[in-house]
Amino acid sequence: MLNQVQKAYLAGFLDGDGSIYVRLKPNSTYRYGFQIAPYIVLFQSQKEQKKFEKICSMVNLGHLRVRKDGILEYIISRADALRKFLKIVKPFSILKEKQVKLMLEILDKKDKVKNKEDFNRLANLIDRFRDLNYSKKRKKHILTP
Amino acid sequence: MLNQVQKAYLAGFLDGDGSIYVRLKPNSTYRYGFQIAPYIVLFQSQKEQKKFEKICSMVNLGHLRVRKDGILEYIISRADALRKFLKIVKPFSILKEKQVKLMLEILDKKDKVKNKEDFNRLANLIDRFRDLNYSKKRKKHILTP
Repeated sequence: MLNQVQKAYLAGFLDGDGSIYVRLKPNSTYRYGFQIAPYIVLFQSQKEQKKFEKICSMVNLGHLRVRKDGILEYIISRADALRKFLKIVKPFSILKEKQVKLMLEILDKKDKVKNKEDFNRLANLIDRFRDLNYSKKRKKHILTP
Repeated sequence: MLNQVQKAYLAGFLDGDGSIYVRLKPNSTYRYGFQIAPYIVLFQSQKEQKKFEKICSMVNLGHLRVRKDGILEYIISRADALRKFLKIVKPFSILKEKQVKLMLEILDKKDKVKNKEDFNRLANLIDRFRDLNYSKKRKKHILTP
């Protein structure tokens, strides 16, 4: 279990260097034509691998990969792991406070999709989320695959 | 006064998105031919200015500037402010732990330079500091301006 100070550190690290995002991937094997794939990624240059691994093992909810350009990515993608991490940083996050809350909402709604209408509501939340991540409003996602 | 949780947040933010560095600027008006200019910079994109200002006002030891490319920089450069900030994050920093400690040492030694020998020792510390910041060992600074 992490203490308050560790949780606040992680919130600061995520605010500084992390990303929360969600992909809506066209995929015909899914009921509504899309796979919803949320992620949290923490980044660091490879020269700091050891110390970065210390941070990752504090989190212990994802996996580490090395990009071709030498950047390390610690990726959290399982829904239960995402939920856990978001709840850890939620009380302390400043820059990503809105993203944290909205992503928790998305994860909740994602489990409860029962029909096309539910799915469209979820897709709207995802659009709102993306607007938080980008300064310029992007085109709304077209929902027909 | 910041509490432990705020301090840990700032350490995380610095580890994620900040820089600690020191310039050794050739300057003939200085006794040993160089001005030693240490800095801490926190970065953020301009679209998050309001929230970033919240973090900056928590720190309250530097000034905010907007770069031409739209990146915000919160710059701490006064020696007393640097010392204060370094002491705030020291117990919590993971990635920049060594830089924090070495920079505090540099600031201490900087005040105590009495002769060329002291200055050279300080310049060596600065070289060590730069090696921490860069993966490839760089050329040692040439001390004759």
